[in-house]
Amino acid sequence: MDFTAPVTEQRFVLDHIARLDTLADTPRFAAASPDLVDAVLEGIGQFAAGEWAPLDRIGDTVGARWTEDGVVMPDGFRAAYQAYVEGGWGTIGSPEAFGGQGLPFVLATAVLDTLGSANMAFALAPTLTVGAIEALTHHGTPEQQAAYLPKLSTGEWTGTMNLTEPQAGSDVGALKTKAEPRDDGRWSIRGTKIFISFGDHDMTDNIVHLVLARTPGAPEGTKGLSLFLVPKYRLDADGNPGDINDVRVVSIEHKMGLHGSPTCVLSFGDHGDCIGELIGAEGGGIAAMFTMMNNARLNVGLQGVQTAERATQRAVAYARERIQSARAGSGSREPVAIIEHPDVRRMLMRMKAQTMAARALLYYAASQVDHANLGDTEAKKRLDLLTPLAKAHGTDLGAEVADIAIQVHGGMGYIEETGAAQHFRDVRVTRIYEGTNGIQAADLVGRKLSMDNGATLTSLLADMRGEAQGEALLTLIDACEDVARNLLASDIEDRLAASSPFLTMLSVATCGWLLEREGRIAAELPDSPFVAMKRAATRFYGEQIVPEALGLKAAAMAPAAPLYAVEPETFAA
Amino acid sequence: MDFTAPVTEQRFVLDHIARLDTLADTPRFAAASPDLVDAVLEGIGQFAAGEWAPLDRIGDTVGARWTEDGVVMPDGFRAAYQAYVEGGWGTIGSPEAFGGQGLPFVLATAVLDTLGSANMAFALAPTLTVGAIEALTHHGTPEQQAAYLPKLSTGEWTGTMNLTEPQAGSDVGALKTKAEPRDDGRWSIRGTKIFISFGDHDMTDNIVHLVLARTPGAPEGTKGLSLFLVPKYRLDADGNPGDINDVRVVSIEHKMGLHGSPTCVLSFGDHGDCIGELIGAEGGGIAAMFTMMNNARLNVGLQGVQTAERATQRAVAYARERIQSARAGSGSREPVAIIEHPDVRRMLMRMKAQTMAARALLYYAASQVDHANLGDTEAKKRLDLLTPLAKAHGTDLGAEVADIAIQVHGGMGYIEETGAAQHFRDVRVTRIYEGTNGIQAADLVGRKLSMDNGATLTSLLADMRGEAQGEALLTLIDACEDVARNLLASDIEDRLAASSPFLTMLSVATCGWLLEREGRIAAELPDSPFVAMKRAATRFYGEQIVPEALGLKAAAMAPAAPLYAVEPETFAA
Repeated sequence: MDFTAPVTEQRFVLDHIARLDTLADTPRFAAASPDLVDAVLEGIGQFAAGEWAPLDRIGDTVGARWTEDGVVMPDGFRAAYQAYVEGGWGTIGSPEAFGGQGLPFVLATAVLDTLGSANMAFALAPTLTVGAIEALTHHGTPEQQAAYLPKLSTGEWTGTMNLTEPQAGSDVGALKTKAEPRDDGRWSIRGTKIFISFGDHDMTDNIVHLVLARTPGAPEGTKGLSLFLVPKYRLDADGNPGDINDVRVVSIEHKMGLHGSPTCVLSFGDHGDCIGELIGAEGGGIAAMFTMMNNARLNVGLQGVQTAERATQRAVAYARERIQSARAGSGSREPVAIIEHPDVRRMLMRMKAQTMAARALLYYAASQVDHANLGDTEAKKRLDLLTPLAKAHGTDLGAEVADIAIQVHGGMGYIEETGAAQHFRDVRVTRIYEGTNGIQAADLVGRKLSMDNGATLTSLLADMRGEAQGEALLTLIDACEDVARNLLASDIEDRLAASSPFLTMLSVATCGWLLEREGRIAAELPDSPFVAMKRAATRFYGEQIVPEALGLKAAAMAPAAPLYAVEPETFAA
Repeated sequence: MDFTAPVTEQRFVLDHIARLDTLADTPRFAAASPDLVDAVLEGIGQFAAGEWAPLDRIGDTVGARWTEDGVVMPDGFRAAYQAYVEGGWGTIGSPEAFGGQGLPFVLATAVLDTLGSANMAFALAPTLTVGAIEALTHHGTPEQQAAYLPKLSTGEWTGTMNLTEPQAGSDVGALKTKAEPRDDGRWSIRGTKIFISFGDHDMTDNIVHLVLARTPGAPEGTKGLSLFLVPKYRLDADGNPGDINDVRVVSIEHKMGLHGSPTCVLSFGDHGDCIGELIGAEGGGIAAMFTMMNNARLNVGLQGVQTAERATQRAVAYARERIQSARAGSGSREPVAIIEHPDVRRMLMRMKAQTMAARALLYYAASQVDHANLGDTEAKKRLDLLTPLAKAHGTDLGAEVADIAIQVHGGMGYIEETGAAQHFRDVRVTRIYEGTNGIQAADLVGRKLSMDNGATLTSLLADMRGEAQGEALLTLIDACEDVARNLLASDIEDRLAASSPFLTMLSVATCGWLLEREGRIAAELPDSPFVAMKRAATRFYGEQIVPEALGLKAAAMAPAAPLYAVEPETFAA
């Protein structure tokens, strides 16, 4: 078994960061008792390690393949996916009214954390299904919900998100896919979408595409967009998959990683016969899209946690096995496991600390989804503020940890058979899709910073300051406040120029706050290996990683003008 | 043409950082006149862009292939290599006594810079040949030099370095390959070497393996090692390649990148008939190895420059072409090239600044090789100090810039056809081979920091302080001095725990010093696109990148003890 779900850690973070007890105290989430949570974490851990983790490498080496009849997944994927459905793992966070268990989003987050650690590419299929469920739950008619939510809730059908077109990436408003009304109240869709994850596959009997398109006479830009549901197979009178719809997989991308996840070019309506249903109001596409995307952004940030966990486990195992060189200063000439060497030990400690940081940030943000769903408007605002941090910093950390894992392996890290390289390649896309991390930073300084005239951020910083004790952390919180004040007084160009360094500073401050709390709690717990590691890694975070982020203040305070001192063509000089 | 050699930049750095004029003023390097330097830079630029750059992608996609008869390079490589030999490009820095031009090492560095930007994997073949030339020049007998140096000097034969064995990576002293004396004064070699770059290929008529092995009765560890020359084909009476030697390519590695460079497992003496010659004294292997490796370490650091240059060119071209979204705050809704967006502009400026930093560091270090060769003992010490910085920080920067290049490309950066992903995959190994960057940091705090009781470092810091003007830079220089003082007073374990952050701090201080000088010189030059970019990027370096490195001080001052607060097995908890 080369992957073990970090059940103790997950439970600790659910308890002390997500404060699952405050959710279980509500009628809506009363089912989320400690015993049930333990059973879920243990159960998904065993399932993921046993069924999904062994397919991670074949997903990479064989990969999803395009054929004229559609995308074929590598051997074992369909059966492992069916086992996931039959185990009821898809239903954890799905709505109770449609066959789901209605458990907290943050518990579903922990489940997805484990699945994705076992097999990140594979776990993208359920991740996208969640987005489709959200869109239908919030914007679908009762008939649409009844027709699609039961099968999506169990995972019997998967969902996709169709936004990007060749000319419309970050600029969603530039998309051209058209929807024309039909006589029967449905719509005829025509256009090409790219970068559609799990846009086709052979694991389920149907696929539910959610497609942004433009209706006749709609205004330009995002206001003219509407959301359509386009099933791969149209439903027959009994609600079962019937005639095939006019959606064609033109090709799949040849990517650097994530080969187990088919990234499709989908052509809708080549034969004028692609039928879809409007979801929500005409012109309400962008609002519905944000419903899909917000939680999707958390779930992509979670892919950073997934990768960090798996890469760390792999590096620790290697560093404990690989014998090389005597320990310096020991007086002995006996070679030792490389984990004994200080610089390797430092790398491993950093991996542990950054993995804890990413998990704390993501589970904390996910818990705000639940509080927001319970009607807590402050939690909703905090969620909005934290979402770009969770997505961007979560994935940045996943990439950093995967990079260190290669370094710990030395030359073997560069050899594909070792496995470390796959995580490094796989995770790289998470900093790009679902809104690049630059787009997240723009969202932070553009929309989120100025929410309530900055009160949402002020409230977060006040919470941090009320609890923080470390000197470096308090300095970093002050620095975040200085930068935020400066940015709020700056024009948009200056704000954007400083957006990425500021996002990192604020993310590290947030993680520093949460990990300091974890460390304080661990200090009170009885000794155990888990507790010892928690104390050491949270201390390392405060002593080494928090101060690093202070080094970003100059960049976060810098104006845009020096960047524009040269013309674009000068960059080629 | 998707690659253009940065001739103006190279000339600027050769003039103002390497101070090529001070070398051309000496009798030994009098040939290195400005006109000749221009001709070399222009010539190699055209050759590399025309002949080598177009093979970069086929090197990646087809790659070197193992066959029973040896390694077969992709189509075009043999011809392009022969064109390199015929153009005399191999001879730039080779010894005049053996057909070389004897030009400064730093000029050969600029040539290799361009070749590797065009095709990094391919350029590894000449890079390794340089190591073999150095070993023979310093440790070979006149007969050995006469037999091998002429063909190595021109590149008609290539060289390899055979150190690593499965159980002996960073710990070279653990290697087991054996050399037994034969009656004819030569040696019989037996053992297996791994990770041998260009250990076999079909581009030249012979390959000269330099092999570390252990002689009978030799002591354990590195003191028992000797260096042997093992040709692929033994030389006949006329000095031409004759009978094949008993060296077998067992396999080549399946690597994450650098597919154009065959990484071989070589088996020496399977049939008891592998004949080699001793190079230097018996037991002198480690000294000879360091002769090979020191300049090789600079040349690997240079691979960071190569990658950074190529990746930056690619990202700039994409960012100028890709139209997406209106410019924020412009009042216009017209989409613009993404280079106009502040966060993209910041990424590109960072790429330019870091590429300049890496090139300044590498060319500066390379110039110290020449001064050392002229007998300047201070230059030799500074070279020794700078070598780990040049290798580790140069490759770190190459990896960082390649990573940003993917981000600038957005989703397209993750698609292999775009080309950005290849640089990201290719450059990753440079932080590992030729001594991992952790080993470089250990070398810095272990051997180099304490040279002359710290006087070598003090002299470098004094030179920086005498010239530096920026407040952040002066603070960073002070911080480096604080850390160095602390490390010199610490035991080896504490020094090693802090070694990597300290290496980065000192590297950034060095680059900050050199780039500040570049900026001052550019401020006095007449306006031009090149000068404008130089002013802007060097300013950015001082304002944003130098302050970042200050954030590492806490880590560089931290003791080892907290890393050892937990047991190795606890990392798996």
